[in-house]
Amino acid sequence: MDIERTLAELTLPEKAALVSGKNNWYTAAVDRLDLPALMMTDGPSGLRKQINSGTTNINDAIQAITYPAAALSASTWNESLMHQLGEHLGIEARAEQVSLLLGPGVNMKRSPLGGRNFEYLAEDPLVAGKLGSAYVQGVQSQHVGVAVKHFAANNRENQRFTASSDMSERTLRELYLRTFEIIVKSAYPATIMTSYNKINGVLNSQNERLLRRILRDEWGFHGAVMSDWGAVANTVQALKAGLDLEMPGKGQASINDIIRAVHTGELDEGTLNKAVRHLLHVVDDWLPADHAQPYDHAAHHQFARKLADDGIILLKNHEDELPLDPQTTGKVVVIGELAENPRFQGSGSSHVNPTKLVSPLDELAGSGLKADYYPGYRLDQSETNGDLAEAALTAAKTADHVIIFAGYPEAAESEGFDKASLMLPENQSDLIGSLAKANVHTTVVLQNGSAVEMPWIHSVAAVVETYLAGEAVGEATWDIITGAVNPSGHLTETFPRRLTDTPMAPTFGQDPHHEYYTEGIFMGYRYYDTHEMHVLFPFGHGLSYTTFEYTNLKLTQNERGATVTFDVTNTGARSGQAVPQLYIANHASHVPMPTKELRAFTKVAIAPGETETVTLALDRRDFSWWCEPKARWQADSGDYEVMIGESSRDIRLQVKLTMDFKNSPAPITTETYMAAIVKNPQLRDLFKQVVLAPEYAGPENFLAITDDQGSLQIFQDRMFMNMPLRAVVALGGPQALITDFITRANTLLRQ
Amino acid sequence: MDIERTLAELTLPEKAALVSGKNNWYTAAVDRLDLPALMMTDGPSGLRKQINSGTTNINDAIQAITYPAAALSASTWNESLMHQLGEHLGIEARAEQVSLLLGPGVNMKRSPLGGRNFEYLAEDPLVAGKLGSAYVQGVQSQHVGVAVKHFAANNRENQRFTASSDMSERTLRELYLRTFEIIVKSAYPATIMTSYNKINGVLNSQNERLLRRILRDEWGFHGAVMSDWGAVANTVQALKAGLDLEMPGKGQASINDIIRAVHTGELDEGTLNKAVRHLLHVVDDWLPADHAQPYDHAAHHQFARKLADDGIILLKNHEDELPLDPQTTGKVVVIGELAENPRFQGSGSSHVNPTKLVSPLDELAGSGLKADYYPGYRLDQSETNGDLAEAALTAAKTADHVIIFAGYPEAAESEGFDKASLMLPENQSDLIGSLAKANVHTTVVLQNGSAVEMPWIHSVAAVVETYLAGEAVGEATWDIITGAVNPSGHLTETFPRRLTDTPMAPTFGQDPHHEYYTEGIFMGYRYYDTHEMHVLFPFGHGLSYTTFEYTNLKLTQNERGATVTFDVTNTGARSGQAVPQLYIANHASHVPMPTKELRAFTKVAIAPGETETVTLALDRRDFSWWCEPKARWQADSGDYEVMIGESSRDIRLQVKLTMDFKNSPAPITTETYMAAIVKNPQLRDLFKQVVLAPEYAGPENFLAITDDQGSLQIFQDRMFMNMPLRAVVALGGPQALITDFITRANTLLRQ
Repeated sequence: MDIERTLAELTLPEKAALVSGKNNWYTAAVDRLDLPALMMTDGPSGLRKQINSGTTNINDAIQAITYPAAALSASTWNESLMHQLGEHLGIEARAEQVSLLLGPGVNMKRSPLGGRNFEYLAEDPLVAGKLGSAYVQGVQSQHVGVAVKHFAANNRENQRFTASSDMSERTLRELYLRTFEIIVKSAYPATIMTSYNKINGVLNSQNERLLRRILRDEWGFHGAVMSDWGAVANTVQALKAGLDLEMPGKGQASINDIIRAVHTGELDEGTLNKAVRHLLHVVDDWLPADHAQPYDHAAHHQFARKLADDGIILLKNHEDELPLDPQTTGKVVVIGELAENPRFQGSGSSHVNPTKLVSPLDELAGSGLKADYYPGYRLDQSETNGDLAEAALTAAKTADHVIIFAGYPEAAESEGFDKASLMLPENQSDLIGSLAKANVHTTVVLQNGSAVEMPWIHSVAAVVETYLAGEAVGEATWDIITGAVNPSGHLTETFPRRLTDTPMAPTFGQDPHHEYYTEGIFMGYRYYDTHEMHVLFPFGHGLSYTTFEYTNLKLTQNERGATVTFDVTNTGARSGQAVPQLYIANHASHVPMPTKELRAFTKVAIAPGETETVTLALDRRDFSWWCEPKARWQADSGDYEVMIGESSRDIRLQVKLTMDFKNSPAPITTETYMAAIVKNPQLRDLFKQVVLAPEYAGPENFLAITDDQGSLQIFQDRMFMNMPLRAVVALGGPQALITDFITRANTLLRQ
Repeated sequence: MDIERTLAELTLPEKAALVSGKNNWYTAAVDRLDLPALMMTDGPSGLRKQINSGTTNINDAIQAITYPAAALSASTWNESLMHQLGEHLGIEARAEQVSLLLGPGVNMKRSPLGGRNFEYLAEDPLVAGKLGSAYVQGVQSQHVGVAVKHFAANNRENQRFTASSDMSERTLRELYLRTFEIIVKSAYPATIMTSYNKINGVLNSQNERLLRRILRDEWGFHGAVMSDWGAVANTVQALKAGLDLEMPGKGQASINDIIRAVHTGELDEGTLNKAVRHLLHVVDDWLPADHAQPYDHAAHHQFARKLADDGIILLKNHEDELPLDPQTTGKVVVIGELAENPRFQGSGSSHVNPTKLVSPLDELAGSGLKADYYPGYRLDQSETNGDLAEAALTAAKTADHVIIFAGYPEAAESEGFDKASLMLPENQSDLIGSLAKANVHTTVVLQNGSAVEMPWIHSVAAVVETYLAGEAVGEATWDIITGAVNPSGHLTETFPRRLTDTPMAPTFGQDPHHEYYTEGIFMGYRYYDTHEMHVLFPFGHGLSYTTFEYTNLKLTQNERGATVTFDVTNTGARSGQAVPQLYIANHASHVPMPTKELRAFTKVAIAPGETETVTLALDRRDFSWWCEPKARWQADSGDYEVMIGESSRDIRLQVKLTMDFKNSPAPITTETYMAAIVKNPQLRDLFKQVVLAPEYAGPENFLAITDDQGSLQIFQDRMFMNMPLRAVVALGGPQALITDFITRANTLLRQ
């Protein structure tokens, strides 16, 4: 398409129609110019193509492969698999003539109460950024565009249309924008979708600083920006701020508003043209080829299983309770209605109509285990059902192993509202407690969207976190439990011991107008680790049926960064995958810093007895923090520590390093403290020299008193060290002396 | 003095000299007009009148009664005694011709690392406000003025001249300004002293909003505002902002700056006149009578003892280890150099040259106990001294009771720098551990400025917190230990289990330019209680040798507040004093709220077997929070809970109440959520009525779908309930319908 020519031929009403969605799932077409409509569908973890495009009814969609929810796929820590997930989704989208897939969702899991946590990737922006980028590149490799969502700081569902995410610029940059920045700069997404919320009082879909200054000017984004469905309050303001497409549009009302604003001069037509140009580029780039290609449903289902296999996390495994080898394991009792009616996906826009749902019960025979099934509880009840629980308990007492499936009913976790508790339904929680007492070989298999409390954790033998595992949930669950697959999933979120341990417990969702990000950069493990708090399971945690040893840490560095290498040896008897995580502690910067921050990770498959050498690179940015006064990333020279671990609390190797980024020294001013002067031997000498200069001698120069060793007495005085030069003047130091010192000190520093 | 006439006669240079201190301890005099200089001295817990007025050397001062530091005197929770403390100080100041006593220090104990915590009153603004007000009224009743300091949000010493206390307006109003507001409105202090720090980037001594808008316009302050010593960066800016007196002034430099600024028009002479007028009023009001009256030193020393007796806190008393009755107690061993060289006051401007220091060792014989003394450790060392420790341990093994004195050496806690740890010196900590193993009857007596960690807490029998107890430390300590006085002190700060449990642990003092008050209103017990954290000792905690029973809680209320009465019975065998504390939980307001906040307290002496009825009144303000959008205090109608306790964690009585403050309902707008509409039965009916009106019928009105019971289906949809009317429009609801509903809803609400 000749974009500029098309733009020139479009009438004002046509342009106004283009930047306002035609309906829920299509952009407007301009038949006169053969400009087609573009189709988009929901679908971060599976296509949700509406059958009737006029509605948003989540149950009215075509059948599609239901992949694990992001909570589980991200737990793979596997960029390659995330790319493949994107490819599979892209192939399916193309088969349905879909141009834009509305995903991935990459916001931070800030509070475990967040209603959409299940469809977000991590509590850490690097994990979400690298995995999200791989996913985007995978989808777009199939000539289908994405909409990276929800831009930005969308971490709560209650009052999501109007609540303002209030935080410091540093917090915004380091945590809540960082994932988007990584994806935009590395994966070139077709579109970005703004979120409903405000940031510091300005609605995101009408936030020029966010949509133009940061996204385009700073990060170089060249795609189109669309709104979440109904996120725009004022269509004209949104266009002026840099929004390109209001979805699904307010029909003729939006179009009329735009036309009127251009006529009155409120909206410059040049601004409108920018939006139209962005949209035409998207249409031109992502319109599907003529013929839809069918895809191999069975193979795609198998990929859903593989992805779940790689993500399921073995949280606890006391005395090697798992795996249960079908050849040698005795009588097993499987309990819990969730085995029969599994929770395998979240609710809301990510809801998929699965092609082939395989429940754990469906696949029980296929697992090879000799097992009986008892429902134990009803999902539609929260109180204990005496008969069901009793039957399950009786069977559990004589079993060799017990497996209880537990989690939330579908209505409890969804887009659209936040959770109020991290507790499982009471009937399930009680049953787990009873089973654990009845049989020490009790394993809990969890199906849930995000962290839960586990008051029974010390009494059960094993815990397997399957999150929302997609349509192959049954196959993948038994793969892990029987040991057909060695678990290698690791948590991308902390499981706190209890809700009140979360930093935002007293404030989350409390104010209808404001969400206060008062914990700042101390979110997730950055909070728990810095406060040395006990947690249920730390960020990055995941067990394996084999063991890994870390050795031989080496480091090379220069002023641009560092390269870290180390060896990982599989010291057990099974093949397995390790997830080495590199954390940095910053001791160089004079601003608050977490005790550690993840700066690199990888996943590596290792055969028994074998050793793999891992190399991870760190660049200047990995040592940087967002400096608000300078409005830029800053890397400080000084001491750092590099830690390699299997979780944020399981550090295997560590080494100190001193970085020199060749920064200029800070100039000396009236606000410079004596402590900073005395710390620098050159400045200390100069200060003494100036103080003792004959021209400042006199009874009023109390600075000049020396001790027996001839050192200035003030150098020993802690209160004095904590005074700036300005206050030294106010307390009687001659003004000329201080001015003289400042001039000479800065000359010295510039040399 | 005829203030206006004097003002008219002053020349510009004279006025400039008046608003700039003559030196450290005097304002300028104008001999020509018989306008005398005013003398001021340091002295929150005792006069620190400099012998040589040209210096600030803290050791160069006249002898004066050294009362307990504020940390201990506030632990009395005794307004009457605080008033008497003020009277005693006022009498002593008058005897020295002092016009202004530079105190009290009333800032919040925000972090236990704060270097000046020992001279501040509490972590709660009500405690500090009521006790500070009583103190001010006491001093001023003796015709001596005060300087309430340090205004405001001065909670850290490191980089105190330049660091900015960054916080929300709500946090500032509810916590950091609240104490000053209470004192200004109830005690009419002669002067206020600004602190060194900035608030949200503006230097306090140059902050017009703080000094004029809030202090004078809102609170009605009529005194003079002076700077802390050296706190002014720019003299002219300070005058413009509302400062009346720069201390100690920059000599002729400040005067010249002012004259120049008036000549260039930068400073309006009217503004200068305001400052001079405030200062003339202070001179006129607080100039001492001609003849100094001597005072009874012995009686004042006895008051220092009485105040300490009332403040010392019995933190732990396992199996009634204390009191040690001299008549019946066997062999006692007293250990610790602090018994001999006690820590009895803090360092810095509050440092007093005591008239008669009585150490615990001095008074040991007087206590009646049969005791030997072993130093056990050296205060000037931090490592264990083997010989001293061994001798102490050997003696302890055969003693009936062991008393170990522990605390910080003087250099470790002072104005001018913050602490870096809450641990006692290692030699003391180790010795306590060894002694506790050697003898189960070990009591720890603490001498320290603020909360310390106690890793040995579970192994010792008793802990007595004497803070910095003043010159009668020896007498008061034995009064409590022997039971001559029944302890009645209660903590005005939380003792956390460890430093990392404090909310600001990762950020306190980290940034030289900013102190981030990210915990907001969740400071002190407001934080620990809301997060349900374990603490070492909670806010308000203090044991007695008797027991108190709380019964018979009654409540009367109206739209202006409530009155609470209850009975306290002394159920033990000794006379004692109870400290009933009234906390409120707010369940009515839709903003983050602590689980409880102290709103009233008292101290009541009760004879054994007797019952006292306590009445505490709550006004509208006690139910209010600071509403930033409205910039005013707001009391919300709804549910509250009143709790009566002996500490924030020892609640004895509680009752729910529903307040109706007759507020107008919030109007319905496009931003009103469906949930709020559906919650109100009238609005719910109206919404249904409008949705089903014939004029909006049609296939596009998806709101109008009803279920089998005839109720609107959308009323059952949790996602829909979480949408504002604006988004309902964007998702297809007819615009006219919504506009119609809003109009009719607001008409309904106004009826």
